[in-house]
Amino acid sequence: MSTDQKMKVAVVQVGTPLYDLDKTLEKLEKYVTEASEQNVDLVVFPEAYIGGYPKYSTFGMHLGERSAAGRDEYLKYYNNAIEVPGPVTDKLASLANQANLYMVIGVIERESTTGTLYCTAVHIDPVQGYVAKHRKIMPTAQERTIWGFGDGTTLPVVTYQKSPTLSARVSSTICWENYVPMLRQHYYNKGVQIYCAPTVDTREVWSSTMTHIALEGRCFVLSSNQFMHFKDFPEGHPLPAGSDPEGIALAGGSMIVSPLGTILAGPLREKEGLLTADIDLDDIIRGKLDMDNSPTGHYSRSDIFKLLVNENGFQG
Amino acid sequence: MSTDQKMKVAVVQVGTPLYDLDKTLEKLEKYVTEASEQNVDLVVFPEAYIGGYPKYSTFGMHLGERSAAGRDEYLKYYNNAIEVPGPVTDKLASLANQANLYMVIGVIERESTTGTLYCTAVHIDPVQGYVAKHRKIMPTAQERTIWGFGDGTTLPVVTYQKSPTLSARVSSTICWENYVPMLRQHYYNKGVQIYCAPTVDTREVWSSTMTHIALEGRCFVLSSNQFMHFKDFPEGHPLPAGSDPEGIALAGGSMIVSPLGTILAGPLREKEGLLTADIDLDDIIRGKLDMDNSPTGHYSRSDIFKLLVNENGFQG
Amino acid sequence: MSTDQKMKVAVVQVGTPLYDLDKTLEKLEKYVTEASEQNVDLVVFPEAYIGGYPKYSTFGMHLGERSAAGRDEYLKYYNNAIEVPGPVTDKLASLANQANLYMVIGVIERESTTGTLYCTAVHIDPVQGYVAKHRKIMPTAQERTIWGFGDGTTLPVVTYQKSPTLSARVSSTICWENYVPMLRQHYYNKGVQIYCAPTVDTREVWSSTMTHIALEGRCFVLSSNQFMHFKDFPEGHPLPAGSDPEGIALAGGSMIVSPLGTILAGPLREKEGLLTADIDLDDIIRGKLDMDNSPTGHYSRSDIFKLLVNENGFQG
Amino acid sequence: MSTDQKMKVAVVQVGTPLYDLDKTLEKLEKYVTEASEQNVDLVVFPEAYIGGYPKYSTFGMHLGERSAAGRDEYLKYYNNAIEVPGPVTDKLASLANQANLYMVIGVIERESTTGTLYCTAVHIDPVQGYVAKHRKIMPTAQERTIWGFGDGTTLPVVTYQKSPTLSARVSSTICWENYVPMLRQHYYNKGVQIYCAPTVDTREVWSSTMTHIALEGRCFVLSSNQFMHFKDFPEGHPLPAGSDPEGIALAGGSMIVSPLGTILAGPLREKEGLLTADIDLDDIIRGKLDMDNSPTGHYSRSDIFKLLVNENGFQG
Amino acid sequence: MSTDQKMKVAVVQVGTPLYDLDKTLEKLEKYVTEASEQNVDLVVFPEAYIGGYPKYSTFGMHLGERSAAGRDEYLKYYNNAIEVPGPVTDKLASLANQANLYMVIGVIERESTTGTLYCTAVHIDPVQGYVAKHRKIMPTAQERTIWGFGDGTTLPVVTYQKSPTLSARVSSTICWENYVPMLRQHYYNKGVQIYCAPTVDTREVWSSTMTHIALEGRCFVLSSNQFMHFKDFPEGHPLPAGSDPEGIALAGGSMIVSPLGTILAGPLREKEGLLTADIDLDDIIRGKLDMDNSPTGHYSRSDIFKLLVNENGFQG
Amino acid sequence: MSTDQKMKVAVVQVGTPLYDLDKTLEKLEKYVTEASEQNVDLVVFPEAYIGGYPKYSTFGMHLGERSAAGRDEYLKYYNNAIEVPGPVTDKLASLANQANLYMVIGVIERESTTGTLYCTAVHIDPVQGYVAKHRKIMPTAQERTIWGFGDGTTLPVVTYQKSPTLSARVSSTICWENYVPMLRQHYYNKGVQIYCAPTVDTREVWSSTMTHIALEGRCFVLSSNQFMHFKDFPEGHPLPAGSDPEGIALAGGSMIVSPLGTILAGPLREKEGLLTADIDLDDIIRGKLDMDNSPTGHYSRSDIFKLLVNENGFQG
Repeated sequence: MSTDQKMKVAVVQVGTPLYDLDKTLEKLEKYVTEASEQNVDLVVFPEAYIGGYPKYSTFGMHLGERSAAGRDEYLKYYNNAIEVPGPVTDKLASLANQANLYMVIGVIERESTTGTLYCTAVHIDPVQGYVAKHRKIMPTAQERTIWGFGDGTTLPVVTYQKSPTLSARVSSTICWENYVPMLRQHYYNKGVQIYCAPTVDTREVWSSTMTHIALEGRCFVLSSNQFMHFKDFPEGHPLPAGSDPEGIALAGGSMIVSPLGTILAGPLREKEGLLTADIDLDDIIRGKLDMDNSPTGHYSRSDIFKLLVNENGFQG
Repeated sequence: MSTDQKMKVAVVQVGTPLYDLDKTLEKLEKYVTEASEQNVDLVVFPEAYIGGYPKYSTFGMHLGERSAAGRDEYLKYYNNAIEVPGPVTDKLASLANQANLYMVIGVIERESTTGTLYCTAVHIDPVQGYVAKHRKIMPTAQERTIWGFGDGTTLPVVTYQKSPTLSARVSSTICWENYVPMLRQHYYNKGVQIYCAPTVDTREVWSSTMTHIALEGRCFVLSSNQFMHFKDFPEGHPLPAGSDPEGIALAGGSMIVSPLGTILAGPLREKEGLLTADIDLDDIIRGKLDMDNSPTGHYSRSDIFKLLVNENGFQG
Repeated sequence: MSTDQKMKVAVVQVGTPLYDLDKTLEKLEKYVTEASEQNVDLVVFPEAYIGGYPKYSTFGMHLGERSAAGRDEYLKYYNNAIEVPGPVTDKLASLANQANLYMVIGVIERESTTGTLYCTAVHIDPVQGYVAKHRKIMPTAQERTIWGFGDGTTLPVVTYQKSPTLSARVSSTICWENYVPMLRQHYYNKGVQIYCAPTVDTREVWSSTMTHIALEGRCFVLSSNQFMHFKDFPEGHPLPAGSDPEGIALAGGSMIVSPLGTILAGPLREKEGLLTADIDLDDIIRGKLDMDNSPTGHYSRSDIFKLLVNENGFQG
Repeated sequence: MSTDQKMKVAVVQVGTPLYDLDKTLEKLEKYVTEASEQNVDLVVFPEAYIGGYPKYSTFGMHLGERSAAGRDEYLKYYNNAIEVPGPVTDKLASLANQANLYMVIGVIERESTTGTLYCTAVHIDPVQGYVAKHRKIMPTAQERTIWGFGDGTTLPVVTYQKSPTLSARVSSTICWENYVPMLRQHYYNKGVQIYCAPTVDTREVWSSTMTHIALEGRCFVLSSNQFMHFKDFPEGHPLPAGSDPEGIALAGGSMIVSPLGTILAGPLREKEGLLTADIDLDDIIRGKLDMDNSPTGHYSRSDIFKLLVNENGFQG
Repeated sequence: MSTDQKMKVAVVQVGTPLYDLDKTLEKLEKYVTEASEQNVDLVVFPEAYIGGYPKYSTFGMHLGERSAAGRDEYLKYYNNAIEVPGPVTDKLASLANQANLYMVIGVIERESTTGTLYCTAVHIDPVQGYVAKHRKIMPTAQERTIWGFGDGTTLPVVTYQKSPTLSARVSSTICWENYVPMLRQHYYNKGVQIYCAPTVDTREVWSSTMTHIALEGRCFVLSSNQFMHFKDFPEGHPLPAGSDPEGIALAGGSMIVSPLGTILAGPLREKEGLLTADIDLDDIIRGKLDMDNSPTGHYSRSDIFKLLVNENGFQG
Repeated sequence: MSTDQKMKVAVVQVGTPLYDLDKTLEKLEKYVTEASEQNVDLVVFPEAYIGGYPKYSTFGMHLGERSAAGRDEYLKYYNNAIEVPGPVTDKLASLANQANLYMVIGVIERESTTGTLYCTAVHIDPVQGYVAKHRKIMPTAQERTIWGFGDGTTLPVVTYQKSPTLSARVSSTICWENYVPMLRQHYYNKGVQIYCAPTVDTREVWSSTMTHIALEGRCFVLSSNQFMHFKDFPEGHPLPAGSDPEGIALAGGSMIVSPLGTILAGPLREKEGLLTADIDLDDIIRGKLDMDNSPTGHYSRSDIFKLLVNENGFQG
């Protein structure tokens, strides 16, 4: 009855060539190829990798005023965002197919009807292509001024069917969403096994959060972070005063953690790169011996707590 | 990824030759030609332009009594109304095609089955011809005695596809419908970009409302108004006592406003004419930086407010 | 059966002495006294008058980073906020009682249990003291980084009973909330008569919005705005580069509009001051002849639109 | 308006003298005195400190059988448990009063009516004495065979009023309850400021969880752990085969973390001891600038998630 | 903290001298004295011991008719019943006091106001005298024609305080009430320790039920049964045709069972007598290691089942 | 109107070949064939028959620690569990169809989404195949560390329609669930006629509980128990020290009881085997003359007790 439940997973630590989609996809392809050559089954790219994370910008905002230059910057950012699904996700699907791996990628999504931008993670299956997306439900601090808020309709846990006897349930949670307990509980309820966390949070303390979640959810946690030098930003981008072009703007911290809290790879800091880990999904079952946070598991107290999730969105 | 999002739009300020469909279409054609020569992409005609707005008439009604003469007047008005779609919209379609522009035109629509008249706006696409109509959902005051009430089935936002990379979502709202917040919210929810407001409201204060809507909806607002002298009414039409034939019966006030509330053209008062403006649809995106009233935008509070719209009509 | 339905109302245009509560209350008292001497029945103070609007600050935020100095600035701002109700609203109540007038005042409210700040309007009745508050439901742009979002529990329309035969229903809507159609519809549904709009929006175009709302809601609109020179900000406050201390930072624009869109006072621009108007609540009835936006009025189309409002907040 | 919000807090790392209540209280008193001499305001003792954690025991259980010796061991354990409130909490209250500090202490509670044991944390106020208790809602693994499950009636957040202007909201969460997201959310909703985590989890990875919770809840986290050598267990206690009496059975790991994830003290490993930290409750406010997980805070998405908590227990 | 929790308990197997209260009390006194001499702490007498169980009688009833003789028989039975409390319970109290033991005695209770008879168990404390009664809630078969139905107001669990450190919670359940699961659950919820079951059910299978209840409730079960020869009935009592006077009419079956299902005494069959057992209340705690049926115990599933009990009687 | 209500029922006493599904099904098939040859209509297999009951194991747990070996043992156990419904229940369905009998079988169920194991009884109908399952709601003692807790959604009473005029309502209750009064009451409320009790409780006292339930519920009780020698456990399984391979590890005790408490077959002890009994469902009606524990029966006191059952589970 038992079959091999092993997979190879990877996280890519890389920065976006801001406002240059071609280069962005080139770099992505390079890492996908590298992962494929190492027989990786699933790879995660950082938050906002496609579209970019224009760190340090304020889009010309101060309390009580917005500038025309800020509006133009926003338009440029909008135009560099992608539709999901759309032509770019089609390209990603063909890439995933060639490389025979599943991808979770942070993108800036443009919802053209309403003109809203979302910080989104797309799920690309090697066979089915684009299968699902998750829109960040709560942007952090300054992000709140440029990104909309995802709703309950994009909180998927996707089953990646690697072979007839090997599959994994995959979710995505972006950056500080990882501090929203009810969102995590929602994914646990759906039986997430590979919990992907694209981010741009480069604090060292981030590894505590990733480790905690692996333990709490008894799942593998894959955190992919951006890495950028100051010189990587396009000319004219507002950088901190006196910043050394060779200095590090986004330090990374990508890592892979097992369901019992062991760090399998990383945290990778202060350089770009690909981290991989051989994982055994059976470790999730081993870990559930003494904790299961699902609604029907040991740690459910459905007589005390009930979590209602509106997955029908605005109309629901 | 970014392409030119510029269009030229126009509003026509003109009065209906009452009870004379041929002359009505002639005048319309004259302005369409003029607009076409100026490379206009989209033009709006006033409320009730085809069929007419018989200002000052009471159709023989007093509280509790109707006269036979009034009934005859209604019959004449009914016979000058058009079916939508029908032969007249076919003519309009061919006109739009020749002029290569999109038209939103106020008409009096005859629903022959029930014998009801509606104050309607028709949408004519240069390629597809007649594409949609909006029936005014709430006639104002005395209008309520001659026009029926549109329902939720005719609240379209139509996509005008100018070229493969240039399109605009167009809606129509007639006269005081512009004071119905939920109707506007409905159009915002559908992502309206060019908000057309055919009207016969000629008060100066109308410009406040048009400006407010542009700001609130982050959309372009095109208001087209009728202009008529007293002498333009057919003989026998009930005019105010002592009105000077050279005096102005409907003063106009047509205008075009940008998504940040800048008046791009007009208000044109006290004369007939064509107003045009070069617009950049990207200004909508620029404006959404700090406000987005769609259900998923910054200004949505779907946890507090939920707007239900019955678009299925009476049976729905 | 008919009795005199006249009142005298006022709006105060004044700037906050930032981080100085004593001076803030002193100035407020001065204007309340002045209003009282003119027999004003109801007076409105601007958005964030108590607590202040630290225009131009970013609280040390850029995309992807927050500074320790920004956190300290936030703490200072937090400590200058007030509890509602609390000691300061008690003082306001006693002031209202002495002056025998109803006050609507913009304040920064501190919710101590959760540590959240709200941009709030408090309603102070001359007899009952503190009667209600409204928390801004959607902060604009940069504001979103320092203020929480009010929910459906604080959307009151308060009845101010001036005398046994004279009363008015009063609401408050803060700054760009005035661009949320469903919020306004909610107040119309509750029969608002005096619609107070404390704000810091000092664009000239603001008057269009105030005028439109008066027309749409058939209510009196009272907009109170802040006025400040650059020199009025405390030392060290981040001002725009090169700003002249004598220059104007917040230009005002306070005004009073009648239900038919007539501007009764203002807009007052580029100076501090008190505006008053004598109003006749019967004008609201006069205006409802041809438009009534309440759920049971002429302009309700409950067969098409239904607005659901969750006034029970989180638990609802 | 701002006052000093500083406190001194402590966690005690100490092992229970198993089955010897007198010695247990003696040791507790020694540490309370030490804390008092250092002007500590609040001190936390480990999980099950009173009553003890008989690590390595199975109470004679195997799958499908229980032994008489195991039943006797359970009786002895039952008799060493305390009633809450009861004579022992009275003693603790008097101790707290003398030492002028607030105590959170892990105890084994005996509910005599039903004969159930609970793993409980008691809250002892220096002025009011025993004020509240929290019963662990979900024992872990083998614990499930000897302890009952607390319900929603004992999930308090207690306000410790140190002085008229200085107070803190204190909660307790025992050991792996810290992996129940909805329990933590419940405490965040109640505005916890000092989150006490008595535990016997001595894995190094525990510090990740404590750090994560501080960041997620923007609160101070005080984790107090047991420390015991093998020789500290009473004779006859079932220890792992071949365990060296001088070896460490429970390694500790107590620590204190700030709301921004900085470890202020500890983790203390491999010895007994008292850890203290000077804390500034205002750091909670500083931290709330960019995250607030309460229902009304930035990170609440009450339109997506709703957490229902039954605090009425069995009868509710 | 642990003290001796041992008691000696007894059940009396004895038949009622029908319609002869003096002899009834004489026999009772004899057994009480015997028990007292053996240092018994608590003794149980059978169902209906005082008042009697007139086995084989139909009180002259057939379906649809009642006879005058039956009415006279009922009157005699009524007159031999006692008021509770009343003179007879006073005598019992003095007896209990002299013998220094707690008594649970089955009686026929006369409720004079309504003229209803109840099959009741009275609780007599050696110090406090009469303390409580339980009225059988459901008479069986023919019993239903002479006894009323008790309600929720007489379902007590009484604490018998033997000494400052030794007490027991005592309940009573009469005959086939022992087949009502919710009644038993109610007593378990109240923490019953000594479950008394006065009965006249003399089937051998009765011992299965007594054993099951001890196991299910983790309590001591004391079943006291009547023993009578045919010759013991008064002359004229309707006996089965051809019954041998020396034959046994009520065969007994009294017994005492421990919380783990061990039969400590009995079943005593085919003779009168006193059964005693030394019990250790701590065996209840030992037994709760692996089962606790109280609402907060291991076997409570308050999220699935909720038992509501109306203890306020008819009006409640 | 009356038709023959006779059936032949059976219980199988057999032990699981641990961790060997093929042999497990082989043995099952052997007994099903044997039962079929004897024209049995319904057969019950023991608790955990498929998946097995690894008696004596502790899965490496002691209070406060879990071993890696224990986690591996759990994984092995998990992999030997089955999905319900799933391929194995399909096989069982085909077996039931061939044998033309209804089966109730104890299995270990794997809920793959959450990784939780349940001790489940499956109901297999000869015509409809898999029809329902019951998950044990409360594992006993050590079991609590490896099995989850069923909820109210799997408490079925299934109608087995043997022929147009002969049907029986069948329930299942596993091992010590039989000590949960409210669960039994729930089944009585649903009119259970054949109460199946798969178990591994091999104490002699178990027969008291089975007999009591038959009497209390006025239903047929079919208890099927496991029988195993020590030598039947796989090599390396943790057995009691010094246990003789020929010794008995699980002694059985299977039995069949009638609604009036008569033991119709068994208890079979110390050997494997099949027990059968011819039953007459009309005996249930005969037994209800003097007792009926359903909510509308003689023994219901709905004015005193009300049992609420949440059959909607987590979402309810």
